[in-house]
Amino acid sequence: MILEAALLFVRPGCEAEFEVAFRQASPYIAMTPGYLGHELQKCMETGAKYLLLVRWETLESHAIGFRDSPRYQNWKQLLHHFYDPFPTIEHFESVRLGS
Amino acid sequence: MILEAALLFVRPGCEAEFEVAFRQASPYIAMTPGYLGHELQKCMETGAKYLLLVRWETLESHAIGFRDSPRYQNWKQLLHHFYDPFPTIEHFESVRLGS
Repeated sequence: MILEAALLFVRPGCEAEFEVAFRQASPYIAMTPGYLGHELQKCMETGAKYLLLVRWETLESHAIGFRDSPRYQNWKQLLHHFYDPFPTIEHFESVRLGS
Repeated sequence: MILEAALLFVRPGCEAEFEVAFRQASPYIAMTPGYLGHELQKCMETGAKYLLLVRWETLESHAIGFRDSPRYQNWKQLLHHFYDPFPTIEHFESVRLGS
């Protein structure tokens, strides 16, 4: 399993509108093969800052399955104009903590 | 529920040693009242970069229950010398995505 993470800086004052748009956009990512779940987290210390976490089966589920799909165009159209600056997206692998 | 998140930059070359220390440190955070779970995620694009995610019942579980406890001293002693720079820790609240 892969974790996609991105800090999202939304234009100040647009938080409520962004959250509505994010709800509308969510099905476009959720319908992707290899999608396992996602969450949007709002920062308590800094206004208009969010953390997006998406769980994928593989890196390719995100990088190809979603990014190269027509669904990504809908996602982009609904959300990208809220970001300033445009976010850096990174991928993470879980470090095993159990024995 | 509160999500604590921190990007951790570990001194290059110390990743394996850091992961061992993190496993040793994990019980100290996990024993805190209000602790719900944690995960350590290693960045796939940038070496020696990690994302720490900790779920807490409340902000106080972390800020007071853990930070003011003797367990935090053990955590600190095991882990803080690996970080360069010292991480910024932030707290997040989940944005409701369902209808």
